[in-house]
Amino acid sequence: MNKLEMTEKIMVAKAEKQLTWEKMGKALGCSHVWLTSVCLGMNSAPKDTAFSLTEYLGLEDDVAHALMVYPTKVWDQAVPTDPLIYRLYEVVGVYGETLKEVIQEKFGDGIMSAIDFSMDVDKIEDPKGDRVLLTLNGKFLPYKSW
Amino acid sequence: MNKLEMTEKIMVAKAEKQLTWEKMGKALGCSHVWLTSVCLGMNSAPKDTAFSLTEYLGLEDDVAHALMVYPTKVWDQAVPTDPLIYRLYEVVGVYGETLKEVIQEKFGDGIMSAIDFSMDVDKIEDPKGDRVLLTLNGKFLPYKSW
Amino acid sequence: MNKLEMTEKIMVAKAEKQLTWEKMGKALGCSHVWLTSVCLGMNSAPKDTAFSLTEYLGLEDDVAHALMVYPTKVWDQAVPTDPLIYRLYEVVGVYGETLKEVIQEKFGDGIMSAIDFSMDVDKIEDPKGDRVLLTLNGKFLPYKSW
Amino acid sequence: MNKLEMTEKIMVAKAEKQLTWEKMGKALGCSHVWLTSVCLGMNSAPKDTAFSLTEYLGLEDDVAHALMVYPTKVWDQAVPTDPLIYRLYEVVGVYGETLKEVIQEKFGDGIMSAIDFSMDVDKIEDPKGDRVLLTLNGKFLPYKSW
Amino acid sequence: MNKLEMTEKIMVAKAEKQLTWEKMGKALGCSHVWLTSVCLGMNSAPKDTAFSLTEYLGLEDDVAHALMVYPTKVWDQAVPTDPLIYRLYEVVGVYGETLKEVIQEKFGDGIMSAIDFSMDVDKIEDPKGDRVLLTLNGKFLPYKSW
Amino acid sequence: MNKLEMTEKIMVAKAEKQLTWEKMGKALGCSHVWLTSVCLGMNSAPKDTAFSLTEYLGLEDDVAHALMVYPTKVWDQAVPTDPLIYRLYEVVGVYGETLKEVIQEKFGDGIMSAIDFSMDVDKIEDPKGDRVLLTLNGKFLPYKSW
Amino acid sequence: MNKLEMTEKIMVAKAEKQLTWEKMGKALGCSHVWLTSVCLGMNSAPKDTAFSLTEYLGLEDDVAHALMVYPTKVWDQAVPTDPLIYRLYEVVGVYGETLKEVIQEKFGDGIMSAIDFSMDVDKIEDPKGDRVLLTLNGKFLPYKSW
Amino acid sequence: MNKLEMTEKIMVAKAEKQLTWEKMGKALGCSHVWLTSVCLGMNSAPKDTAFSLTEYLGLEDDVAHALMVYPTKVWDQAVPTDPLIYRLYEVVGVYGETLKEVIQEKFGDGIMSAIDFSMDVDKIEDPKGDRVLLTLNGKFLPYKSW
Amino acid sequence: MNKLEMTEKIMVAKAEKQLTWEKMGKALGCSHVWLTSVCLGMNSAPKDTAFSLTEYLGLEDDVAHALMVYPTKVWDQAVPTDPLIYRLYEVVGVYGETLKEVIQEKFGDGIMSAIDFSMDVDKIEDPKGDRVLLTLNGKFLPYKSW
Amino acid sequence: MNKLEMTEKIMVAKAEKQLTWEKMGKALGCSHVWLTSVCLGMNSAPKDTAFSLTEYLGLEDDVAHALMVYPTKVWDQAVPTDPLIYRLYEVVGVYGETLKEVIQEKFGDGIMSAIDFSMDVDKIEDPKGDRVLLTLNGKFLPYKSW
Repeated sequence: MNKLEMTEKIMVAKAEKQLTWEKMGKALGCSHVWLTSVCLGMNSAPKDTAFSLTEYLGLEDDVAHALMVYPTKVWDQAVPTDPLIYRLYEVVGVYGETLKEVIQEKFGDGIMSAIDFSMDVDKIEDPKGDRVLLTLNGKFLPYKSW
Repeated sequence: MNKLEMTEKIMVAKAEKQLTWEKMGKALGCSHVWLTSVCLGMNSAPKDTAFSLTEYLGLEDDVAHALMVYPTKVWDQAVPTDPLIYRLYEVVGVYGETLKEVIQEKFGDGIMSAIDFSMDVDKIEDPKGDRVLLTLNGKFLPYKSW
Repeated sequence: MNKLEMTEKIMVAKAEKQLTWEKMGKALGCSHVWLTSVCLGMNSAPKDTAFSLTEYLGLEDDVAHALMVYPTKVWDQAVPTDPLIYRLYEVVGVYGETLKEVIQEKFGDGIMSAIDFSMDVDKIEDPKGDRVLLTLNGKFLPYKSW
Repeated sequence: MNKLEMTEKIMVAKAEKQLTWEKMGKALGCSHVWLTSVCLGMNSAPKDTAFSLTEYLGLEDDVAHALMVYPTKVWDQAVPTDPLIYRLYEVVGVYGETLKEVIQEKFGDGIMSAIDFSMDVDKIEDPKGDRVLLTLNGKFLPYKSW
Repeated sequence: MNKLEMTEKIMVAKAEKQLTWEKMGKALGCSHVWLTSVCLGMNSAPKDTAFSLTEYLGLEDDVAHALMVYPTKVWDQAVPTDPLIYRLYEVVGVYGETLKEVIQEKFGDGIMSAIDFSMDVDKIEDPKGDRVLLTLNGKFLPYKSW
Repeated sequence: MNKLEMTEKIMVAKAEKQLTWEKMGKALGCSHVWLTSVCLGMNSAPKDTAFSLTEYLGLEDDVAHALMVYPTKVWDQAVPTDPLIYRLYEVVGVYGETLKEVIQEKFGDGIMSAIDFSMDVDKIEDPKGDRVLLTLNGKFLPYKSW
Repeated sequence: MNKLEMTEKIMVAKAEKQLTWEKMGKALGCSHVWLTSVCLGMNSAPKDTAFSLTEYLGLEDDVAHALMVYPTKVWDQAVPTDPLIYRLYEVVGVYGETLKEVIQEKFGDGIMSAIDFSMDVDKIEDPKGDRVLLTLNGKFLPYKSW
Repeated sequence: MNKLEMTEKIMVAKAEKQLTWEKMGKALGCSHVWLTSVCLGMNSAPKDTAFSLTEYLGLEDDVAHALMVYPTKVWDQAVPTDPLIYRLYEVVGVYGETLKEVIQEKFGDGIMSAIDFSMDVDKIEDPKGDRVLLTLNGKFLPYKSW
Repeated sequence: MNKLEMTEKIMVAKAEKQLTWEKMGKALGCSHVWLTSVCLGMNSAPKDTAFSLTEYLGLEDDVAHALMVYPTKVWDQAVPTDPLIYRLYEVVGVYGETLKEVIQEKFGDGIMSAIDFSMDVDKIEDPKGDRVLLTLNGKFLPYKSW
Repeated sequence: MNKLEMTEKIMVAKAEKQLTWEKMGKALGCSHVWLTSVCLGMNSAPKDTAFSLTEYLGLEDDVAHALMVYPTKVWDQAVPTDPLIYRLYEVVGVYGETLKEVIQEKFGDGIMSAIDFSMDVDKIEDPKGDRVLLTLNGKFLPYKSW
């Protein structure tokens, strides 16, 4: 079973059981953002999480095995078109140099890891329009001299 | 005076006075991330902030006028090359579909605004290696049906 | 049922019943432009509209569910080739800087939303050749300083 | 004098006289959107308008001659980056197929001209946030069979 | 029946009846160049021509309906690879600026329409090597000032 | 003197003498379309023509030498943006396959040369709008088998 | 039968009969390089060669008809990736300007035809490592002035 | 002195002395094709050749030093536009797979080197039109298994 | 059997037998890195290795034949997206010019062959985090003058 | 002083003193590969190294300050053209998937860091042709689940 079929199976089971990613994350004791990325095939799950999830959703072992496979991460277009994803791309374009200035001033020459990394999404209710709060948390990696 | 010359002038003054973006932000009562983006020419400053900044740095009025100009936001390459900025681009590629799933589950069909938007950078000290905490805060905009 | 199959079913029913988008919009009490975008899979329909439409066209519930799904908006080519669509792209290329000048002079630094947005198409009869009148109506979003 | 120098001269004169595109358009009896595109070098001006404008702004004849030159219309990037212009590009991407459906249903097989074409921008005041009203008006050109 | 299947059916019938585009154009009283573009799915046929053609070729009504559909004109590559088509692309690259100079000198600021447009291909016999004569005939559209 | 400076000199002389390409072509006994391409630096001139032209325009010998240089033909963008040139590109996209069908039916497997090639532009006056007549004349080159 | 199926059939027959391109070329009295290009679908074969080949390989007439079809020559990537083909592309990049200098010095302004063209491949045995000898032979086509 | 200035100096001296690449190659006892690539900055010259050339052309030592610099080989466009160079690119596109088939049949799995490589250009006089003979000679490099 | 099916068969057998690339390389007496590239279809295997491998894995002869086929090496994207592969691409971008400087200083003008080439991967255990040791070993090929 | 001017100054001093990167690395007690990347502006130097280097080369303090600046790492082309650098890019293309398989089999799901990273170049003398030995050493970073 490949990652595409795995995602399909999970999506159908999630819809039938009327679950949300948030409920699933809580039930399995992990971040619902990370869990979503695993179910969409962009991260691999440790064995425990993989089998807990398939048990929770009533899916066969093949799905668990597919969840454990290390994915090849591919995206289609250098410039994404979907407006929600484009806005994130635009933030990188508009604020990339700014973040470089500010992070390197605080930490020295180096980068924020996208591997030793976690992310969260929260909803802030606001009478003028609810707000999305996105939190990225990555280890700082200093450039090495050798 | 165009934005490039403005940035140059500010950078020199900042270096001579041994300031940091953080100190400058505190002195002017605004976010240092936003202030950096203004000084790099990716946002315009309101009149008050523009003149407070040039006074604080001892720069002439021309710089204040350049700070107030509405910028045309341009970046050079569809795929950024600098490693710090690329990691952010990679996060959009790897987690873009995940964020779409999670945000639209919590808020409905729509996007997180990159205009009615703010951003912050914090340093979390950690004996295993300090961490960068990036916070993005954008208004949710629901798609309209009409 | 995915969006492609949904569009196919609607197109066949529309052709069999010899309907136009305009008649369908009027019957459902909504803009025919918006309705077209929903049926082509570029917008999601609220539950009511989705079921009114499938009832009106005599289609099964699966189509209504597909209409309610939040779409991922994707287009194939950075530069469109079909002449009707290219002319619109050309207008953005030729008049993009002009619109930036004029809108920001009238509203300040910010953008016209493509999300809190509606659009209309009218026919102006003219003996020298009928004219297409396209109306775009989007909320102005000012850039935030923070 | 080339178009770039021409635009520079006009921008300086406009700023010194504290004019707006709207005032300039009214004074010359033409659309301020079209006039902006002429001054940015994306359209040529008829002789009368060119000299009326330089007289009005107190500029030399060279500027008038540059205004009359037929421009080569060039834009830099297949996908624009400035957020205001990108949103227009996004509208073409998201609604291009929709507009093709609706226009060709109303007019037959053909296109909306981007040459025999005019455009307007209006501000609609609204307590929930002002709105931008963009009006595109182009002659319908039917495909010819021969 | 989509345009691809339509083209296939016509090609098979044309081969079986050992017709040429030229004979077919004469039989139907229209340009064989235009007819070819219709049969390749790049133009729509008026109802009369569509049914005359299917009758002439002994094809069912589905083909006629497919011929009447307004096509979405798509080509695959910004730079064509087939040598015959590339040479035409090269002519546009090498002589584009020249044609702009010459056409706008004769007609004023504007373009040659590719919509209100016809085209012909002739063979000029020549002992030193036959020559292809391509004739493009398009309405001049002046830029509008407004 | 490079080709850019050569073009500049010729353009200035042509404007001062209020000449047209057509007049210049007639005076020199050659096609005005070809002459334009030579003056824009996209073709080289034979020695005679080069010196006749500089004499006619009252320009120094350096210009004649620059006219004789074999040019490197470069154009900037895979997809041209200027509307006049884009329409020609569109004709290649829309009708490329059609021309391949028709030419190869008439001539066999091969191409129309863009080197052993000439081109003409005529104005057809028409009360419904003047028309541009473009004539391309290229030697047919059959593919060789060996 | 399309060119892809044709190539497949020929490849299978060639492998079963343990033939080489060289043997096949000799048997048919033509260049084995040209014959390979025909069998890969990049050139068409004259009727005689097409039927000689299918007879020689024991293949049905459909294959001969497919060999006679005038191909549309398409390649996938602007920059080829396979190392053997990339090296040829690199030669064009590194030595393109050099060849232009040398050829135009010897022949005048013009090009080497890729249509009236043949090519050969030889093996030069050498104790320090065998060498590939590639010979390209194309008619010189002078640019025409008109 | 960089490679661009070096090329300029050599071109001027070559023109003044009315030399050809062929004469220069003979005088220096090396291939005129290779010498041209050295003078255009696409190869480095050994010390002897570099100084022989500058002596022969009457140029200063700086030019010799620039000739000896190992160049960074860069070309501008994935798809070349100049017709002479494009035809070579087209040959790679049309015949790349053919050459792979033929070379690997004769030599085994491997490539023709573009580094341990030489090239020649000859003129074959022919009453039906002279022909360009291009000879590429590269060492065969077998893929290694390890 | 094509290379894709071959890879699939090998992957299934490898998983069922719970082998690693390292164990397979040792068993066959060859580098496990090279063996992996062969099994992924990016290199061909000599006859002996091919049959040893299929015997070892209990696979049919078709797989051995597929292993012996000379592959066409293709990769999809100019800029790879998977983070592990992107980091390697980034190393080429960041250190490419550096490696050119250092290698050409040590060896003269030339390149490191990617054909007469081998590669190894080792794990260096380290309490602060294990390290990947990648060793590339390629023959130096000097540019030839001729 | 920007990085370009810094590189220029260092290159001139290095040439005048007839140094090599290797000698410079030894003198300063650091890797000559890393030092080269610092001098080419692709890495920043710690204060000590920066001043040791300028003292060693007899350069002013401005160069030391430029060496300490955190660089923005930019490279021009998605696919490099210089043959030495292209071969490295080709290795990533041909062996990228192989390295992913082998590294992830040995280390688990994760990547080799290009930041906590070092690199070395050695010359292996060999009568059949010297060999380049490239060693890449990067920390393994496991993907985090959270």
